[in-house]
Amino acid sequence: MAGDDPGATLAESGEFAVIDRLVAGRRQPPGVSLGPGDDAAVVAAADGRVAVCTDMLIQDRHFRLDWSTPYDVGRKAIAQNAADIEAMGGRCTAFVVGFGAPGDTATAQAVELADGMWHEADLVGAGIVGGDMVSAPQWVISVAALGDLEGRDPVRRGGAGRGDTVAVTGDLGRSEAGYTLWHNGIRGFEALRRRHLVPEPPYGQGRAAALAGATSMTDVSDGLLADLGHIAAASGLDVDLSWDGLHGDIDAVTDAAAAVGADPRQWVLGGGEDHALVATFPASPPPGWRPIGRVVGVGDGRVTVDGAAWAGTPGWQSY
Amino acid sequence: MAGDDPGATLAESGEFAVIDRLVAGRRQPPGVSLGPGDDAAVVAAADGRVAVCTDMLIQDRHFRLDWSTPYDVGRKAIAQNAADIEAMGGRCTAFVVGFGAPGDTATAQAVELADGMWHEADLVGAGIVGGDMVSAPQWVISVAALGDLEGRDPVRRGGAGRGDTVAVTGDLGRSEAGYTLWHNGIRGFEALRRRHLVPEPPYGQGRAAALAGATSMTDVSDGLLADLGHIAAASGLDVDLSWDGLHGDIDAVTDAAAAVGADPRQWVLGGGEDHALVATFPASPPPGWRPIGRVVGVGDGRVTVDGAAWAGTPGWQSY
Repeated sequence: MAGDDPGATLAESGEFAVIDRLVAGRRQPPGVSLGPGDDAAVVAAADGRVAVCTDMLIQDRHFRLDWSTPYDVGRKAIAQNAADIEAMGGRCTAFVVGFGAPGDTATAQAVELADGMWHEADLVGAGIVGGDMVSAPQWVISVAALGDLEGRDPVRRGGAGRGDTVAVTGDLGRSEAGYTLWHNGIRGFEALRRRHLVPEPPYGQGRAAALAGATSMTDVSDGLLADLGHIAAASGLDVDLSWDGLHGDIDAVTDAAAAVGADPRQWVLGGGEDHALVATFPASPPPGWRPIGRVVGVGDGRVTVDGAAWAGTPGWQSY
Repeated sequence: MAGDDPGATLAESGEFAVIDRLVAGRRQPPGVSLGPGDDAAVVAAADGRVAVCTDMLIQDRHFRLDWSTPYDVGRKAIAQNAADIEAMGGRCTAFVVGFGAPGDTATAQAVELADGMWHEADLVGAGIVGGDMVSAPQWVISVAALGDLEGRDPVRRGGAGRGDTVAVTGDLGRSEAGYTLWHNGIRGFEALRRRHLVPEPPYGQGRAAALAGATSMTDVSDGLLADLGHIAAASGLDVDLSWDGLHGDIDAVTDAAAAVGADPRQWVLGGGEDHALVATFPASPPPGWRPIGRVVGVGDGRVTVDGAAWAGTPGWQSY
């Protein structure tokens, strides 16, 4: 069939042949009782509930095809949705994917995108169970993720308690460092540049935090100060971080920051897209989490560092 | 806050203020235990499974803002996803929505889009439980729908049996008629032109078909011949329709077809986007369904009308 021609475009292959290519040979996890190919898929929701979230990525806004391979883009699209399920204390079970692209896109690129998505879905143990392909002026990728809370309450943003330890798992500032290196055309620091293209959320740690009694949690997608600000505001409290707790992250990006004349602390406090998890714990955080501060006072959601407001930006907003 | 200024743009309002506007005052159905505002929502999945599907709409490809109001676009985006859940025999429980638009889009337009989405979601009894807003060069809307199969097997495309009655509920050819009228700048036939902008899927009839023992079902999104072709091919059988069964649909678009010099039969056989449901029944179809043909022979998925192949096109493909 036309979809088998690796040199063909999406328009030449045709929608149905391309979808056949994207779907062929994938292995669904046991919870998927009906995968792609019908009007809808059917996925287990063992505790009688399902967690659901969605994220959209626009070419040249959230990724650049001259920086990222389609494989990288696929991994990133799945990872950032998976991180949102982790941040509720859940385990991802399935993804559905909408993909818009120009008709002259090489079919092989769409296959590579799907391969990257499956790579990341396999890491979290979930299946890609359905999707939609449409013609669009640029690449658009929209993912919705489903998750299993395994009978537990979701870990929300508003549950932090005064005196709780604020802890983080996963890296901070790496993606922002990588972005700035790419943006300035600096070719060194391969690991940081790579991290900007493919985040590495700490899979499994959301569930671990929930089991350890986390009172609030979110993923660091916009920036540590911005995202912790959501927790603080929703909880009606303030948060005070310590430079001591952040020095490992700062050290990891200090050389790169020097190379571009940036402040490594800004990257760690305001850089998003690493999809680390940040949570609050009345007791000790579980293994793999590092304390970075404490919930203080009764407030309106201020986040300080060693008692002082940060003069830089807290994170990213769309538009 | 800036989001309260009806004359503001998305960029002026800012992402979080706009989201506050879109979310404020919405009433979630009882199955939604956690709505928007956290990293993910939580929705009931009473029988321990969830049906899930997704559809993406691109401005100027799937809708035009000089034909449709944002409210219409919102209704259509929800309706076409709801129809996919209906087509499995399910009941919609929740939607998540990704929305991309230029920063200079009026915030009031985004609110109108959300109002249209909620109008349609209320019709099906489901909630819009989460979303993502991003900056994009044109409007992009991606919806994922969740559904409850209420303990029943999903009604798939591949279960048709020889001798089954083929029946349809909902209208055929109206959306294609309306599209052609819009495209040719003809101002009459208001109901048909309106139908192209906002489809009216026969909500509840997917569940009714499942309860009546439907052996296969799909929604007519690409065209009756194309979509029935999927059922026939998946079932390893052929389908023969009868002009007799289709005359009501043909009559309904005959005047409009005459006005643009089109063949009304092509609209009924090949027109998509009405999101009618077509299904096969070993016994009589339930009330509200009309027989249009029969499953015949053992074949490779041919769909004929009174024994003859249709010389026109079977329906639409992307690209």
